[in-house]
Amino acid sequence: MEYIDQDPGNCSIGRSLELLAQPWVLLILREVVRGVGRFADIQFRLDVSRSVLADRLEQLVAAGVLVKVPYQEAGRRQRHEYALTGKGTDLIPVLTAFRQWGDRYLADPEGPSMLNTHAGCGAPISLAYVCEAGHHLEGPAEIERRSGPSARPLARPHRAATAATS
Amino acid sequence: MEYIDQDPGNCSIGRSLELLAQPWVLLILREVVRGVGRFADIQFRLDVSRSVLADRLEQLVAAGVLVKVPYQEAGRRQRHEYALTGKGTDLIPVLTAFRQWGDRYLADPEGPSMLNTHAGCGAPISLAYVCEAGHHLEGPAEIERRSGPSARPLARPHRAATAATS
Repeated sequence: MEYIDQDPGNCSIGRSLELLAQPWVLLILREVVRGVGRFADIQFRLDVSRSVLADRLEQLVAAGVLVKVPYQEAGRRQRHEYALTGKGTDLIPVLTAFRQWGDRYLADPEGPSMLNTHAGCGAPISLAYVCEAGHHLEGPAEIERRSGPSARPLARPHRAATAATS
Repeated sequence: MEYIDQDPGNCSIGRSLELLAQPWVLLILREVVRGVGRFADIQFRLDVSRSVLADRLEQLVAAGVLVKVPYQEAGRRQRHEYALTGKGTDLIPVLTAFRQWGDRYLADPEGPSMLNTHAGCGAPISLAYVCEAGHHLEGPAEIERRSGPSARPLARPHRAATAATS
């Protein structure tokens, strides 16, 4: 099936964005990845309203991306903080991809505000395309895209729409 | 500087999201990556209003992510379609990162709707962490994070806020 005739409604990118492209969600995850897991700390750092933050955290817990972990400070009642689940940890490459692009095009002249390095050797890390056969791709130009098993056609042919609206 | 004391205001993730986390933006880029570059085709496929799509395309052109390329069909006036610039091509890993996560957690039972393979050998591709010294990381657990050259402290100490609001 040609891509232009394929229904984008069950695309994994679109489905991911339903949760993740909501305001604050990726910034909240950035904070938790960096170990800032307490409600008041996240709220203060992002300068987001308490009600919006509470909503987003609830959604992220419901989606299985974050989990509430109890902790207790001496003399105070038990509280909880937020931590990544495995499903949440699998989102770190999304943040890295944004960081990589932002570091390249939007960083301050003196350089990025954060550095990500390989714990083993200290060298800067990046995301790279590899294939299951073990090859490194030079870049996205070497990606071939085709319909997958759940591809389905668009209900209406697109050319009629093109003719009608252009 | 501890991350919790660092101002997140000049973070590359946050700056990228200002443009990219707006509704429709990443879906528009997905379409252009797949070769759907004409206004009417994008509008029809995403079912987005013409005015919102026009705004977003204008922003993406202004940001240097997309470029307008003229084309002409026989007997019709010249038109243009949208294509990725180099800066836009560098965003493809962001889409791949979302796709990878969505394929794993949100795809239909029969599998993803799109397959991305290595043009050279046909094997499925993915994003992997590598370092400049040539090592492959097992996963994000091997990433070490620290402040970069443009790191700056939060204007107010966060602990005061924590005490006041928690």
